[in-house]
Amino acid sequence: MFEDRSKRTELSEIGEFGLIDLISKNTELLNSSTIKGIGDDCAVLDAGHQKVLISTDLLVEGVHFDLTYTPLKHLGYKAVAVNLSDIAAMNAIPQQITVSLALSNRFSIEAVEELYKGIHLACKKHKVDLVGGDTTSSQKGLIISITAIGYASDDQIVYRNGAKEHDLICVSGDLGGAYVGLLSLQQEKSEFVANPDMQPELDGKEYILERQLKPEPRTDIVLELQKLGIKPSAMMDISDGLGSELKHICKQSGVGCTIYEEKIPIFQQTWDIARKFDLDPTTCALNGGEDYELVFTIKQSDYERIKTLNDVHVIGHITNEESGLTLITKNGVSAPIKAQGWDGLK
Amino acid sequence: MFEDRSKRTELSEIGEFGLIDLISKNTELLNSSTIKGIGDDCAVLDAGHQKVLISTDLLVEGVHFDLTYTPLKHLGYKAVAVNLSDIAAMNAIPQQITVSLALSNRFSIEAVEELYKGIHLACKKHKVDLVGGDTTSSQKGLIISITAIGYASDDQIVYRNGAKEHDLICVSGDLGGAYVGLLSLQQEKSEFVANPDMQPELDGKEYILERQLKPEPRTDIVLELQKLGIKPSAMMDISDGLGSELKHICKQSGVGCTIYEEKIPIFQQTWDIARKFDLDPTTCALNGGEDYELVFTIKQSDYERIKTLNDVHVIGHITNEESGLTLITKNGVSAPIKAQGWDGLK
Repeated sequence: MFEDRSKRTELSEIGEFGLIDLISKNTELLNSSTIKGIGDDCAVLDAGHQKVLISTDLLVEGVHFDLTYTPLKHLGYKAVAVNLSDIAAMNAIPQQITVSLALSNRFSIEAVEELYKGIHLACKKHKVDLVGGDTTSSQKGLIISITAIGYASDDQIVYRNGAKEHDLICVSGDLGGAYVGLLSLQQEKSEFVANPDMQPELDGKEYILERQLKPEPRTDIVLELQKLGIKPSAMMDISDGLGSELKHICKQSGVGCTIYEEKIPIFQQTWDIARKFDLDPTTCALNGGEDYELVFTIKQSDYERIKTLNDVHVIGHITNEESGLTLITKNGVSAPIKAQGWDGLK
Repeated sequence: MFEDRSKRTELSEIGEFGLIDLISKNTELLNSSTIKGIGDDCAVLDAGHQKVLISTDLLVEGVHFDLTYTPLKHLGYKAVAVNLSDIAAMNAIPQQITVSLALSNRFSIEAVEELYKGIHLACKKHKVDLVGGDTTSSQKGLIISITAIGYASDDQIVYRNGAKEHDLICVSGDLGGAYVGLLSLQQEKSEFVANPDMQPELDGKEYILERQLKPEPRTDIVLELQKLGIKPSAMMDISDGLGSELKHICKQSGVGCTIYEEKIPIFQQTWDIARKFDLDPTTCALNGGEDYELVFTIKQSDYERIKTLNDVHVIGHITNEESGLTLITKNGVSAPIKAQGWDGLK
């Protein structure tokens, strides 16, 4: 749908080392902690007195992404973004990534270059160095494995297990957009399959499509919290869905939580399109996933300071373990939070 | 051929989190630099004043391994070993790994457990912690992505680009065994396909099969060199073949080299089986690859000390760039070294 098929060079023409050269050529190193990038057995990183954080993701075509409606450049950008988001979720700043690719012979050099354009753009935007990786062939489709490396001082790192009773629950940005964006793309795809001459109808969906195709890791929130002197007691990024992430935080912290439906931030376009799909916008926000916003808990005494951040919303508070996970709906009904996070194996 | 099919549980029965629990349960943390392993967004590593080294590999079924003759436990072991070998190749000591898997529904829980038995065994043997990863489904076959993390002080790290004219070229262990081991397994497979009742004929091939199926990273050599106070000027591990690795070292160091055929260490069994395949054992040693031995260069003044290591062999010396890469054969003929390293994209 998006891939430019006008020029095609086979990967076998340049081979693995040719491909590595191609990738290296466009790789700029930004961080002084990067001592050695691509071109040796390992990347070398200067940790100094900092802690090193490592996160890794494996993305498989047909499982995690569909190239009929995901432009390769966006895919590259998103693959990096979601890994950086994992580092941000620890209250740390990502500085390096490694990218490994397995490619079937369906992919041309131009396709790989397009993918790396997105990877490099995400690196540049988030000041991250591409320091290594591996490239090989696959029997079927495209597989992307990314490892992100971040740094934080010992007392700055935030785990999932530190939430305490009475802490406030905050989320950044807004939720549910990535999910309704995905539904819109899937709908376009099925209409495209039925009628290939059809022009995609994406007007008025720009925001939700960008949420799905080009999510941003919220390292900006990490930096803002540091400026305000707020250290969350627990934090995660929202990849599987708010409900699923709250379940993890509560389980690991040995607590419960109460959140208020009316406080969950949902963008107007997300709301409207969810309704067009006959879906409850709150359900999309709770279970949709892929928003890559941060959900975190803070002490009540941090409330006045957190209020100064426009893009952070207090949606509830931590309770004791016995109270379980509760949603108070707009009409005042208590309902247990169902976590239907995405499971890569089901 | 090796997989036990007596019991089978579908991955979908336990899901991704069930699988992570299963993996975590068997994961022992050995290093004090591992502050946080599996169970959060990232692994957290304490670098102190050390440099951090990162290496990553992507292994694809049908491209890098064939499960008809590779037992899953051996595959897990080897997948870890080859990554640790990359860290050793920088003169550093590996301490952590992350393992990501993509699996088709052909694989049962028992198969995954068998794979992790090998992974855990390699971790235990080489004192490495499994600190994270990702598990997902694949449309076809098994994909393994491993990232290894190692540490070294700044002045201890050895790159590929430090070889100087007159330096001595050393290799550890012996070469070519992994390649003739592979040929033997491939032969057994084709005979097995022709006649499934056949019993594998592997007597007298134990050494070369172990070289292929269960290579060891030579971190022991790294430690021995440190004990002797020898810091190589350049080093690589032999994954693609001695010829290919020498080409990398010479290119990056801006030098040439001369090696002597009679000095290349080849185990008797490797020699005998190579001959049975009508192959020149020296060619197997030069181009076979997958031995995961170390090739490194040292100053001439280190010669007396290196001689005390039984498992290290001086095979030649570094020359100037104009002289190119030369093999002196047993009958005294100079021949250019051909590097026919394995290319994952061809």
